[in-house]
Amino acid sequence: MAGQPKPDIRPILNIVIVVAMETEALPIVNRFRLTQHPRSLFPGRVPWVRYHGTYKDLSINLIWPGKDPASGVDSIGTIPSALVTYAAIQALQPDLIINAGTTGGFKAKGASIGDIFIISDCAFHDRRIPIPGFDLYGVGLRKAFNTPNLIKELNLKVGRLSTGDSLDMTLQDESLIMANDATVIDMEGAAIAYVADLLKVPAIFVKAVTNIVDGDKPIVEEFLENLAAVADVLDPAVEQVVNFINGKSVSEL
Amino acid sequence: MAGQPKPDIRPILNIVIVVAMETEALPIVNRFRLTQHPRSLFPGRVPWVRYHGTYKDLSINLIWPGKDPASGVDSIGTIPSALVTYAAIQALQPDLIINAGTTGGFKAKGASIGDIFIISDCAFHDRRIPIPGFDLYGVGLRKAFNTPNLIKELNLKVGRLSTGDSLDMTLQDESLIMANDATVIDMEGAAIAYVADLLKVPAIFVKAVTNIVDGDKPIVEEFLENLAAVADVLDPAVEQVVNFINGKSVSEL
Repeated sequence: MAGQPKPDIRPILNIVIVVAMETEALPIVNRFRLTQHPRSLFPGRVPWVRYHGTYKDLSINLIWPGKDPASGVDSIGTIPSALVTYAAIQALQPDLIINAGTTGGFKAKGASIGDIFIISDCAFHDRRIPIPGFDLYGVGLRKAFNTPNLIKELNLKVGRLSTGDSLDMTLQDESLIMANDATVIDMEGAAIAYVADLLKVPAIFVKAVTNIVDGDKPIVEEFLENLAAVADVLDPAVEQVVNFINGKSVSEL
Repeated sequence: MAGQPKPDIRPILNIVIVVAMETEALPIVNRFRLTQHPRSLFPGRVPWVRYHGTYKDLSINLIWPGKDPASGVDSIGTIPSALVTYAAIQALQPDLIINAGTTGGFKAKGASIGDIFIISDCAFHDRRIPIPGFDLYGVGLRKAFNTPNLIKELNLKVGRLSTGDSLDMTLQDESLIMANDATVIDMEGAAIAYVADLLKVPAIFVKAVTNIVDGDKPIVEEFLENLAAVADVLDPAVEQVVNFINGKSVSEL
């Protein structure tokens, strides 16, 4: 018998922060005084951007999927985030992935504008495959890395995240978000969780609420109004989380 | 002035075939006498499967994303296909990507069960981001590599492909599939086109129609009924395409 696996007591030294939008990334880059790395790690033609720096005991790489070459907008959504997470894990072998970003929240589930959530579980709400087995695969529910000490120490809210590639919400999306028991929704988290799980790297999710999905304002309008402001809420929260992580092992989080 | 780029006259030597389902993959594997490669090329923990062999002048690698570790079903949909396409291009530097698979077709656009389509353009129908610029990014329309000689010689049908992560079709999906002017729909093509375009590798799409989307039968029922049968249509078509490719450069396709 192999017995219980030993808790990993090595201190975390190397973290990768995955961020979908430049507006979310730059305040974090500035806060940790990261600089754009001249060697991108990635194939020459991809638009993915790497910022790097040392902060306390940690080597921090922030990866942003960059501007879509065809349309010129941020490469948001599941596919670019999955790709950069895969490529960053392969190239950097981080001890921990942090996905930081903005999110829509449900006030009926206790979310308010400006809240910071640590995610307990991620799932998809726009992969409907009504065949037994494939249905569960489509939902893709997986736990985020469990961080009870971090949540307690920083007094952060905890909730489930549901991910989809659309900014609007159809009735089918809403029904599946409810089935996922989600408090917050985004366009990347479950994809990043999927890749981190495939490659067995612990992943945590720090999400700042930019809009209330079950409120009065149209999603897009509130998203745009709040994006700039909430980036200012997100980066202090990421700093708090990183300060807590510094000097600890993953099993102490 | 740099002038016109010279046509690439090197013969194609190295192709990667990306297939989403084992039922689609195995007839192709058998037809080209490919064998599962002991060194997977990929990180130890991913379920991705590589079959390899030599056929005429070509080194052929067929990559299938394998069974999802959590649910045990084939890893269908955009994220695994994007990841394996990225990883296979990085590891194998192919001259050409072929995405082969089953597809739903619209009879109103001229599709019939068992038809083989070569795709002219790919787009997504489930990435609704109603912000200027992001809307076009979400649709992600891109041309497949242009193969006028192949289409003429093999007398294949040509159509536009629309991709989404669900097997069913909501009214919103249908409306966007129509806006994409799609004749056929699948769950991977536009994601593979996206990655191939990022890394500047020519990609072509060979799609066998398994179900008629605008017919009488429910999509799921017809999909399951036809999947096994149509895999028998798909692999002879892939062989025809590969025979045509053999000995030619990409500019001769």
